[in-house]
Amino acid sequence: MPKDYRSQMEILIPKLSMLQRELKDLEVPVMIAFEGYGASGKGVQISELIQALDPRGFEVFPVKTETREEKLRPFLWRFWSKLPEKGRISIFDSSWYRKVLIDRFNKKVKKAEVARSFESIREFEKQLTDDGMILIKIFLSITKEEQSKRFKKLLKNKDTAWRVSAGDLERNHKFKKYKKMNEEMLEETDTYCAPWIRIDGNDRKNATLNIYKNVITILEQEVEVRKIGKSITEYPGNNREYIGEKILAKSDLSLTLDRDTYKKKLKELQNKIERLHNELYYRRIPLVIGFEGWDAGGKGGAIKRLTKKMDPRGYVVHPTAAPNAVERQYHYLWRFWNDVPKAGHITIFDRTWYGRVMVERIEGFAKPSEWQRAYKEMNDMERDWADFGCIVLKFWLNIDKDEQERRFKERQNNPDKSWKITDEDWRNREKWDQYEEAVDEMLLRTSTTYAPWIVVEGNCKYYARIKVLETVVEAIEKRLSKESK
Amino acid sequence: MPKDYRSQMEILIPKLSMLQRELKDLEVPVMIAFEGYGASGKGVQISELIQALDPRGFEVFPVKTETREEKLRPFLWRFWSKLPEKGRISIFDSSWYRKVLIDRFNKKVKKAEVARSFESIREFEKQLTDDGMILIKIFLSITKEEQSKRFKKLLKNKDTAWRVSAGDLERNHKFKKYKKMNEEMLEETDTYCAPWIRIDGNDRKNATLNIYKNVITILEQEVEVRKIGKSITEYPGNNREYIGEKILAKSDLSLTLDRDTYKKKLKELQNKIERLHNELYYRRIPLVIGFEGWDAGGKGGAIKRLTKKMDPRGYVVHPTAAPNAVERQYHYLWRFWNDVPKAGHITIFDRTWYGRVMVERIEGFAKPSEWQRAYKEMNDMERDWADFGCIVLKFWLNIDKDEQERRFKERQNNPDKSWKITDEDWRNREKWDQYEEAVDEMLLRTSTTYAPWIVVEGNCKYYARIKVLETVVEAIEKRLSKESK
Repeated sequence: MPKDYRSQMEILIPKLSMLQRELKDLEVPVMIAFEGYGASGKGVQISELIQALDPRGFEVFPVKTETREEKLRPFLWRFWSKLPEKGRISIFDSSWYRKVLIDRFNKKVKKAEVARSFESIREFEKQLTDDGMILIKIFLSITKEEQSKRFKKLLKNKDTAWRVSAGDLERNHKFKKYKKMNEEMLEETDTYCAPWIRIDGNDRKNATLNIYKNVITILEQEVEVRKIGKSITEYPGNNREYIGEKILAKSDLSLTLDRDTYKKKLKELQNKIERLHNELYYRRIPLVIGFEGWDAGGKGGAIKRLTKKMDPRGYVVHPTAAPNAVERQYHYLWRFWNDVPKAGHITIFDRTWYGRVMVERIEGFAKPSEWQRAYKEMNDMERDWADFGCIVLKFWLNIDKDEQERRFKERQNNPDKSWKITDEDWRNREKWDQYEEAVDEMLLRTSTTYAPWIVVEGNCKYYARIKVLETVVEAIEKRLSKESK
Repeated sequence: MPKDYRSQMEILIPKLSMLQRELKDLEVPVMIAFEGYGASGKGVQISELIQALDPRGFEVFPVKTETREEKLRPFLWRFWSKLPEKGRISIFDSSWYRKVLIDRFNKKVKKAEVARSFESIREFEKQLTDDGMILIKIFLSITKEEQSKRFKKLLKNKDTAWRVSAGDLERNHKFKKYKKMNEEMLEETDTYCAPWIRIDGNDRKNATLNIYKNVITILEQEVEVRKIGKSITEYPGNNREYIGEKILAKSDLSLTLDRDTYKKKLKELQNKIERLHNELYYRRIPLVIGFEGWDAGGKGGAIKRLTKKMDPRGYVVHPTAAPNAVERQYHYLWRFWNDVPKAGHITIFDRTWYGRVMVERIEGFAKPSEWQRAYKEMNDMERDWADFGCIVLKFWLNIDKDEQERRFKERQNNPDKSWKITDEDWRNREKWDQYEEAVDEMLLRTSTTYAPWIVVEGNCKYYARIKVLETVVEAIEKRLSKESK
């Protein structure tokens, strides 16, 4: 429990109350949808949230199995009939996503219906937000272990045992399968007009604070935008504070590998990759590997070890610099599309299209509307590639600030390496915190089932290189074994 | 051949040339995609269009079967690599739609792949237009008969015979099947950011004029918008002249039915509907029937005859007036979603949600951005209903201006009916031409395979009523026979 929980809430609650009044005056309708795993605390969090709200201005709708009346109508009907009128707030305790989550898990939704349901949902949300609705979608996640613990606790007490259903237990039992459905849902519906806010629900107090902060940030911004009559996408202040998961901070940079183990493993892995590369070529499977990371994070070294024994006719490394005069004449993804590997080939990008949401975002080279829609655009591109059969892997080479300083200085003092370090590198370093936020948001929004991000603990170069090679080997082997089935 | 073809072209060609120069100066890239049936004249029309263009500023890309190089990459790759740079024009003789048309027809695209391909295409187009690309999509249609004629002519001459492929002939042979794929494609990809321009290709000169006019209108508007720096959706002049198909003009209003046949058929049909209504109830199939039409077009009379023998517990008629104070607090589709029939019930709407693109458009109650995106929104809603199992039919009761005047006067002179006619009716009548354009565009954009429009020739009330009842009977019978298979 955060020490200052009470004091923070004492500031957040009146803020939210005031926003509700302002939205009422501005006649703006608001919908807040809560989704998440069983016992992740949807109900509790809703209770916390409405503490701040004038009860005459909101309504909470629990969404359970469809009633008889609801079953007799298209699935969105019950949500259309619960839309808030202008100036009011509707809160949904689970929502229209039920259809692609619990109902799907329970096989009430046919396989062929799933894709169409995602589309219906995207259209529904687009229609509402186009019309001026503020739509906030909150996803609470907890681990399987935490869920088991919470269920157990609820079941022990006969006053609360009824709250755990057979379905809950089944989804806990098959947590991995259900989680995959949730991940797919998050990918399919994390749109520009209605992005998901993902909240770590393992710590309830922290989750409450994060939900409050997110809801307040969004509402403040929407109020501001409506007051000045500007489109939200062009609103200059649309650089939302990132309150999402801190992914980089969780990376364990103490991991190391000794030199002997490194040497031994490296050789084994390189031999494996040589063999697997041939196999990829033979089976016509293309592979894309993107490298991003802190300056001096070790991208170059990792790429060198990765390609050591690859047949040079079958792979290419594209270093990505700022777009040149020709490239600036086109869409920012154009040059990456041009470089997509053909079937059986490998393309390695040393820095990638993700510059859009890092340097371009932070330096203002891309407008807020541009970098914000870029998450979806990049996901779409990678999905097109994956659909074609591409294996797509993205590595973030992570080091800490001290390690970076050490490496910068080492480079400066080494005449062979001093060219590698420029004033710009030192300037970027000053923006470390801004970058860290941007990277966290990028990892969260663009790590997908079809093109995952792998955060590589990079303080120890040996460890990092082996992790990269191992990940590539595993990904290829997984695909090959799937194809031969 | 339009008499004034030459003189019109003499005005249109320099206009387009000038626009090309302006777009070059403004550094705006343009893509024009031509799709349409075999021998509908794509090649000819492209040749006509480029007459106006500076050859240093455009390129034409014929899109054939994928080359070996192209097959080895995701299907959009070859189009990404052909994007125009800023200030240039790329013209595609058939395009990325090949995948969901010819390739689909040839079963090169798996069934499960089709939906995903539509999505990829929509995302591709959205990314480009978001980035400032002008994207114009032209669809040329001809009838099966005209196609046969053109193929025969080409085949007769050995210099042109090679232009007719075995595939062309097969698609001519299975015209209906191929047409259905084209219709589905038009429905799935007629988006707000890249709408389709449908051109009747049966008369080549007329088609050329229409293509020129459409391309010029769009480019003029885009130039204007870029000059004033406004979003295109809010551009006040965004009330494009309608140059699409004139559907109402084709309606044969001389059709009549004599009183005796009418009486006899009416009784038969009403008995049938009574029986079918029970069947619908029993099988839990909902039915939505929307009525639109000119004032005094005969909606009321048709609804009366349609419902005569229906069980009143199983149907309801909703008259749609201007939204009241409560309804104005919500999305314009909200009240129609609330009235959707439950399974086994019938809902008849006397006037519908289509007011959005007729009266609201013409009177300025809806902004251009609002009514323009409404086509897709209404299609989406109807598709949600259809997916649920709803039969959705929409009738346009068509009369001509003289007949309307006759009926207005008759009503005024009849004390029992004079309440039916107001000053507003006379005022609307003055905007007949504006309405006709709006209706034509509406019929074109929202008549779908899942919710078709039926234009009812209404000068003879007997004929009109029978056509309505017959259409309803056929639609129900078709569904029932499909379900019992």
